[in-house]
Formats: sequence, structure tokens, C-alpha cells
Amino acid sequence: MTTTSSSTSVSVIGLGNLGQALAGAFLDAGHPTTVWNRSAAKADALVARGAVRAATAAEAVAASDLVVVAVIDQDTARTVLESAASALPGRTVVNLTTSTPEPARALADWATTQGADYLMGAVYAVPQTIGTDDAFILYSGSADAHERFRAPLGLLGGDTFVGSDPGLASVHDVAILSGMYGLFSGFFQAVALGRSEGIKAVDLTGHLNRWIQGVLAVLPEFAAEIDAESYETEASSLDMNATGLRNILAATEAQGLSTDLLSPLQRLLDDQVAQGHARKSLSRAVESLESRKR
Amino acid sequence: MTTTSSSTSVSVIGLGNLGQALAGAFLDAGHPTTVWNRSAAKADALVARGAVRAATAAEAVAASDLVVVAVIDQDTARTVLESAASALPGRTVVNLTTSTPEPARALADWATTQGADYLMGAVYAVPQTIGTDDAFILYSGSADAHERFRAPLGLLGGDTFVGSDPGLASVHDVAILSGMYGLFSGFFQAVALGRSEGIKAVDLTGHLNRWIQGVLAVLPEFAAEIDAESYETEASSLDMNATGLRNILAATEAQGLSTDLLSPLQRLLDDQVAQGHARKSLSRAVESLESRKR
Repeated sequence: MTTTSSSTSVSVIGLGNLGQALAGAFLDAGHPTTVWNRSAAKADALVARGAVRAATAAEAVAASDLVVVAVIDQDTARTVLESAASALPGRTVVNLTTSTPEPARALADWATTQGADYLMGAVYAVPQTIGTDDAFILYSGSADAHERFRAPLGLLGGDTFVGSDPGLASVHDVAILSGMYGLFSGFFQAVALGRSEGIKAVDLTGHLNRWIQGVLAVLPEFAAEIDAESYETEASSLDMNATGLRNILAATEAQGLSTDLLSPLQRLLDDQVAQGHARKSLSRAVESLESRKR
Repeated sequence: MTTTSSSTSVSVIGLGNLGQALAGAFLDAGHPTTVWNRSAAKADALVARGAVRAATAAEAVAASDLVVVAVIDQDTARTVLESAASALPGRTVVNLTTSTPEPARALADWATTQGADYLMGAVYAVPQTIGTDDAFILYSGSADAHERFRAPLGLLGGDTFVGSDPGLASVHDVAILSGMYGLFSGFFQAVALGRSEGIKAVDLTGHLNRWIQGVLAVLPEFAAEIDAESYETEASSLDMNATGLRNILAATEAQGLSTDLLSPLQRLLDDQVAQGHARKSLSRAVESLESRKR
């Protein structure tokens, strides 16, 4: 049984912005830290802070109980881990490389077959926030590995274990980033509308953020309606929103701007109203999205 | 000069959820409050709390220095104010009825011609939050009216005067609600992706909201880049996001879900990259949106 004191040895493979921040957090907490990067110079600053430079990825994997991988993509992660395959048995690999679910699952399967205990993580942080309360990581895969290395992993930020299927962290990642890109779509539309009447983006964004803060508080209520498939509401009905959005899109056209970013949502709302759900909650729109298979 | 003490008389025309909340806030602060609604029964509870029931909209306008209108749409607001035209000279009308810019400007022009001092307001609140810090109102039109009635209007929530063009409040409104509908698009996409792998909407939304909170902090930086038309960045480049979103959309298709809600944003990002701005900030996508005239 590996100890989880600060004597737990940690290797970090991949020293981009994220990897450097991760290795720095382990060093700061006193963990013996080994680092490796394809371009060795990326390790210089960490070595100056006390890290050990590994000559190969296999050496890095062999050096520590806990092996954290943060490279550019899953293909690279696989190439690196394959080069270290002989060292994998008995090691715990935590892969924090961004991924979609399918390659995440494939690499997890391979690494597990090689004898590694494997944990996939999706990082929600910019490198500057690693190690602060603003960072959080969703893990899936080996619950045992997550429990055993809770202390060193906890140095990186808040974390949540979301399930034993190693692909689940990436499913969450794809979903959460989709939410973010929706917000960006709305932000660009909002700024373009404001600018069409001479409103500065900074001024508009101040008001927008204030309103979005309030709207975020409603999303858990929508989510509960969706989970329960119970869409009774006194507040935000589908017909009210379908009419409201239609007026907004008409006003957008009147400003000479494209409505492309938001008209797909209008189609979902209209579909729900056409199905007879006009007085049901806006949240029911997700059902039209789910029925619209690609 | 009207006083702005609690002796300022106020009339509220239109007693839907919003109008009732507004009248209640005035009554609570001790303002002599007159109310009118097409269906008179809607006034009963307010009359029990001390409001005076007007028999007609004209009587309501004649009764007070400050006349607040909160009806279903601008056509209704116009019909009601036209029926009270003879009482308008010298009155201050604050129209809080949801509107797009064009009808807001048309009604403002008409009311001003009738001799009213006119202020248009866009309300960001649910009725329950009227009178709390969670509510805010953006006003445009008569700066003098906004200044003069600052005290009673301040009872409704935080407020900001955004310009003397009466349509500006509605421009802000259309823009800010567009931002909200973008967030909703992302929320539905996120929830559908999670559900495709058995993740409960409530669980996903907890993580999503945490991440969105962090993303909101970045929007003012994007806005500043857009205002300055200066898109140098070390952080969130167009090519990084174009690739990231493409991977997300591919993973969405792999889950058997439609990508309709987010593919319009992909086209903006790809357009920017094709124009040679790959290493510039994501915020530059707004320029592709603005060039995509309807």
C-alpha cells in the first residue's frame, strides 16, 4: 500500500503549461518529483526547484508510484506510455490529457491490460489556478487509485470522482465545454448586437454577466425537471420563451445581423410548442434536442 | 419640480406579476400608489394593502407624477397610453414593458410628442426579486426623469442609465437575452451529452455551473480585446478553440446527438482561422459574426 504522505513519489510526464503547474504544485508540497518532457529544456526550471530529470518516459514511469500524464492529445499519451510499457505494472497512471470519450476509454483499456492502475481526469483550470480553489478536476476509472492518491491529487484543486468507467471524465468534459461554447455563442451575439448600436462590449458585458449570474441559479431547477421528466412550471414556459426568442431574432435581423447562432434553439422551442407542450417548462427543450439524432 | 420623498405619488398600469411586484414595492415604501389593470380584480390585493384603484388608465395617469407601465407588449402599452393621452402632458412615464428597439423608439416618440417625459426600462428580475439586490433595470430616454425619480425607481432594484436614445434599453435587452439564450443552448447540449451516458442532469449542472462561473470572469477580457480591436493573446487562441470545438462536435456525433446548436460557432471560428487569425484571441470570432450580414 502506497503511503499518501508527502513522501509519495510523483512523476509528471509532459511539461506544457499544465504539466509545469502540476509539477510545481507537487514540488511545493514536498513530494519527490520526477519530470520528463520530449524537449528536455522544458524541465530546466523545475529541476532548479528540486525536480529530478528523467532521461526517458520509461525512466519517469519507473521512478514514482504516481505517474501524471499531461500531454497534447491521447495519441501522444499512448505513444509515450507505450514507450514505457515495461515499467507500467504496479504503477498508478493519472492521465490529465484532454480527450473525448472514445480514445480515453481505448487508452485506459490498454494501460489497464499492461498492469497499470488507471485514472482519467478532466482538468477545469487555467495553469495559473492549479493548486487553488478555482481549479477542479473530474476523475473516472480506478476508484481505488483515486482514494489512495487523494492527498497528492488534492494539491491540484478540488476534485470529484464521477465513476468507474474511465470514459466518464471525458463525457463530462465534452458536455461542460459544450455548455461553455454555448455561452460564447451567446456572448458573441450579445456583443455584436450592442456594437450595432454603438454600445461598447465592455459596458454590455458588465450587464450581461450580472444577468447570467442570476440565470445560472435557475439551471439546477431546470436540471431537476429534466431528471424527473416533470415539466410543470409557473415561471419560464416554452411558449413564453419561443415568443421571446422569436422577437429577439426578428430584432437581430432588423439590426442587419445574422441569427445563425441562436436559430437552432428557436427550432427546438417551436418543436416543443408544436408537440403541445406550450405551457411546460423551457427545460423540456432538451427532449427535442435528444430526439434530433444526427 | 417633483419631490422624490416617499410623498411622490406613483401609478402602476398593468398588474401582471411584474406590475404587482412593482406596486407592492412602492406601497411598502409609503408612496401614495394608484393602480390600474384591464381586469380590475388583479388590483384587489394591492387595494387591500392601501393602493387606490383607478377606474381607467387615464385616471391612473392623471393621479400621479410618476406613471409606471408594465403590460404584455408595446402594442398594449400604446393602446393604454393613447386612451390616457389627455392626461399625459407633464407626467413622467416609465415604460417597463419588454420590447425590441423599434417599437420602443416609436412609442417613446409618440409619448414625448404628447408632452410626457419618457423613460424606457428593461427589467432584469423575476417578480420575486423586485426590490432586492438581485434585480436591476437598465433605463434609457429622459436623463432628467431618471435623475428626478431616482429614489422611487431605486426601490425596484439596482439601476443604470444607458443613454438618452429611448431605444437603448431595448437594445441592451435584446443583446443580454441573446447571451442568455446562448447559455441555454449550451446547457441543453451539455445535459443531452451527459444523459447519453447516463449522467444525471443535476450532477452535470453542478460541475457546469462551477466552470461557467470561471468562464464569466474571462468575458470582460474578451470584451476589452473586441473594443480595442486588439486580439493578441497567450491564452485562448482561435485555432486552439477551433480544434477543441471540432473534437467536441465529433464526440457529440459519436454519441448520436445533433450538433446543430454549436456548429454555427464552429463556422465563425473556422472563418477566422481561414482568414489567417489562427493565433489571435477567440474573441475575434465576433468579427466573423458581424461580417455575416443576414
